[in-house]
Amino acid sequence: MPYELYYWPTIQGRGEFARLALEEAGADYIDVARESEGLAVMMRMMDHAERPPFAPPFLKDGETIIAQTAAILLYLGARHDLAPKDPAGGLWTHQIQLTIGDLVAEAHDTHHPLGIGLYYEEQKPEALRRADDFRDNRIPKFLAWFETILARNPGGSSHLVGRRLTYADLSLFQLVEGLTYAFPKAMSRALKKAPRVASLHDAVMNRPRIKAYCESPRRIPFNEEGIFRRYPELDA
Amino acid sequence: MPYELYYWPTIQGRGEFARLALEEAGADYIDVARESEGLAVMMRMMDHAERPPFAPPFLKDGETIIAQTAAILLYLGARHDLAPKDPAGGLWTHQIQLTIGDLVAEAHDTHHPLGIGLYYEEQKPEALRRADDFRDNRIPKFLAWFETILARNPGGSSHLVGRRLTYADLSLFQLVEGLTYAFPKAMSRALKKAPRVASLHDAVMNRPRIKAYCESPRRIPFNEEGIFRRYPELDA
Repeated sequence: MPYELYYWPTIQGRGEFARLALEEAGADYIDVARESEGLAVMMRMMDHAERPPFAPPFLKDGETIIAQTAAILLYLGARHDLAPKDPAGGLWTHQIQLTIGDLVAEAHDTHHPLGIGLYYEEQKPEALRRADDFRDNRIPKFLAWFETILARNPGGSSHLVGRRLTYADLSLFQLVEGLTYAFPKAMSRALKKAPRVASLHDAVMNRPRIKAYCESPRRIPFNEEGIFRRYPELDA
Repeated sequence: MPYELYYWPTIQGRGEFARLALEEAGADYIDVARESEGLAVMMRMMDHAERPPFAPPFLKDGETIIAQTAAILLYLGARHDLAPKDPAGGLWTHQIQLTIGDLVAEAHDTHHPLGIGLYYEEQKPEALRRADDFRDNRIPKFLAWFETILARNPGGSSHLVGRRLTYADLSLFQLVEGLTYAFPKAMSRALKKAPRVASLHDAVMNRPRIKAYCESPRRIPFNEEGIFRRYPELDA
């Protein structure tokens, strides 16, 4: 039985982290909300499931429904050899994912600092100020942390954890993709100071399954409805 | 060997979720940064560990260091019977915790909508607008979700998951505590529409170990350095 992934059908968003893991694993999955009537099915499940997801993305595997991006990856990582088997290594991979998730949330807040109840156009002056701090302080701080992890990994700096690919590597690739789309100037500067992060991004991009996926129509282009948005006024 | 918990010594903050689990479990732990020289030890570990925490809180158990609040609770929950043993139940508990963490982050952003690079006083007009949305839309939406989960739990509405206490119950207690401190008026209204959440909060508060902890000097009072801050102008 294929996995069923539920996420907004027109954006990469948080669902993309799950899609990348499923693609790299070569897993059989249906991106349900992109099928006919699928969005209505997704909304019904959020309303009526015994264990209702608070928000997409969520994954259905048989009778089990798992929401929250990091929890989905914890689940998929163990099943598809995208995380170390040892408990400490598994937790470390999860911890990196949670930290990536924190930066994703902050990236979203650059265009919605006053909350999602208002359009970007209604909070543009505030977005300009928040984006300043994000570009000048937050991106460099997080990238320095990833760079340090790669430098200290006893398994080598080709991966965040151990000697093999984990879902944390896939997610760091996606984080760099998204930030580079939204803040091309700031990221160009930041990646010069984080060469191991840049190399990891490129290596993941060239993995056969990831490359095939990114070149396929399954990969939704970035756009200004998602988490990572290119508003040139927010970059510098 | 006692656990070592590392967190900022003068606030409840995210560390409090770990403290509550350790207290309920009756676990032997040292709140390291509250000991003499402990803060310096914490900063050194963040700088020099092979697997450096991005930020506190983090837990040290022997040689294993675990950061990220939700990952700490995943670890403690399995070891101290504060989560179901079945994998689906464990993931569900974790998913609830991650969603609580999302609301905690949003609570923080009510007083720092433009980021942590500026003081509250420098972003007060923006904080007023963000807090409006948080009180009117976000608190009710999240509380309705917790209320639904409690109502649908086949094990009864005394717990979020199954028939017994989990760390998710402890964390929901702390979330209600914090929000009630920061937004007493808004929470008084919101809890009237979420009676099961209010009951769960009260039941956890009266558990012997939690009660003893909250009455002890180990419980740091809420204050305006933490995540949940009482700025009366942000409540209504």
